[in-house]
Amino acid sequence: MANWTDCLNFGISIAKQASEVVLSAFQQHKEVKLKSSPADLVTETDQRVEKILISAIRNRYPQHRFIGEESVAAGERLELTDSPTWIIDPIDGTVNFVHRFPFVAISIAFTFNKQIQFGIVYSCVEDKLFYAQRGGGAFLNGEPLYVSGQQDISRCVVVTEIGAERDDVALSTTTSNICRLLKLPVHGVRALGTAAVDMCQVATGGADAYYHIGMHCWDIAASAIIVQEAGGVVMDTDGSEFDMMSRRVIAASSATVADRIAQVIQAFPCCRDDEDNCRCGATGVN
Amino acid sequence: MANWTDCLNFGISIAKQASEVVLSAFQQHKEVKLKSSPADLVTETDQRVEKILISAIRNRYPQHRFIGEESVAAGERLELTDSPTWIIDPIDGTVNFVHRFPFVAISIAFTFNKQIQFGIVYSCVEDKLFYAQRGGGAFLNGEPLYVSGQQDISRCVVVTEIGAERDDVALSTTTSNICRLLKLPVHGVRALGTAAVDMCQVATGGADAYYHIGMHCWDIAASAIIVQEAGGVVMDTDGSEFDMMSRRVIAASSATVADRIAQVIQAFPCCRDDEDNCRCGATGVN
Repeated sequence: MANWTDCLNFGISIAKQASEVVLSAFQQHKEVKLKSSPADLVTETDQRVEKILISAIRNRYPQHRFIGEESVAAGERLELTDSPTWIIDPIDGTVNFVHRFPFVAISIAFTFNKQIQFGIVYSCVEDKLFYAQRGGGAFLNGEPLYVSGQQDISRCVVVTEIGAERDDVALSTTTSNICRLLKLPVHGVRALGTAAVDMCQVATGGADAYYHIGMHCWDIAASAIIVQEAGGVVMDTDGSEFDMMSRRVIAASSATVADRIAQVIQAFPCCRDDEDNCRCGATGVN
Repeated sequence: MANWTDCLNFGISIAKQASEVVLSAFQQHKEVKLKSSPADLVTETDQRVEKILISAIRNRYPQHRFIGEESVAAGERLELTDSPTWIIDPIDGTVNFVHRFPFVAISIAFTFNKQIQFGIVYSCVEDKLFYAQRGGGAFLNGEPLYVSGQQDISRCVVVTEIGAERDDVALSTTTSNICRLLKLPVHGVRALGTAAVDMCQVATGGADAYYHIGMHCWDIAASAIIVQEAGGVVMDTDGSEFDMMSRRVIAASSATVADRIAQVIQAFPCCRDDEDNCRCGATGVN
């Protein structure tokens, strides 16, 4: 099996370089375009940062493939193959970025044979660099990360996103899921506005679970391996194996907590990321 | 009118000292006691930090009075008088503190003639010191703060707390408020798990509004003047004048946005903070 450490280190170095573009734009007024919903924004910086990242990687690894949020938005076909593939969200938390709410991340995952090999989530404003390589553990700014190991749902802090999806069914499902969790009870529900950083809270042990329906592969591919390498569990919201194209995820401190959340929450319908001609209207965070 | 700058500076210095106790306890396992709900926790550190703060202030200002979260929990009567009074939450975000979710704050407000004169919110793990003095502007780590000035609710990021109150009426009101806001629409809803830090996001301009029902005066008194001095508006959720004992608050970037939120959200019943023999069961965050 190939050792992808050089690619990981290169990914970290370009994430740090690209963060300078994100941070210098963070304080400035942004021209915002609406994509598919009031929560689905894109700025010139999203597009610019994705181009910077892809161009740097292509220059170094000309044979590698890409799945990038803004490239897909611009019409590129989303297809995961067995080739080495970089899955990129240039700014996870674009709504936060536009508002200067201080949680925005560059998210970079890398797959080979369709399996995630490493993940990098750089929360730029916080200056927190999360990363993990398959079999190598998870780290935050060089310090090893471990999930809480919590088994008891009634002692969990749960992170999720609220209202990134805006049709009536998605909204009512999202809020009733929260209500059902609170009645279990759980200790609390949190939402930072970026799926990648939300999910990394599980890897730190600061939160015990994260779940989300409607996000995209680039939002959570990097965080998924970070949670797994910190000792956590990642699965589909229906309790089946994690499928990063399914647009449904639970990340948790233990299988017990993940299973309990899968029993309690309901998913609303949304097309797979790798489905052509999606017309479901569910958009996900960006 | 007295100038309370010496008191403000003293408050800042003891908040920084007390934060060392909070930070050294943050990484350790905590013995947790349940107060009135699954979200209403207290640790030995909450009680210890409150004692450190009150003892230091009493030593310097023997005539001053106190309203402290843990003193009230221990049975002290909550009464706001015209005397100089320090309103203290030793750890706002105790659930976060217990879980090591990285947002916990020491909140200190100071009133004279029942009017808030200054407020200090020290988000210890982030090392963000928010403060404001009446008429003197608001600051974060010495840099002046300004609200976003946003007037259009459909472009707002709204922060709130979700499920700190756990009876059925409170839970269904809380989640349906979120649903109604998302349908307006708003850009997004966020929740960091500490009312004090949540509300300071409005002062930074990173969020455009915060609202909460069921919290206590010590959770929001300091942040209220920080938001006002950053140019924001603070009012009751029913649209009337802000009353820090009413356990209802909207903080916003503009009167227009505050009014719109007041029209949309509903409050569930909870006793005033200064009401004796409360039996309503609503507990608020801590």
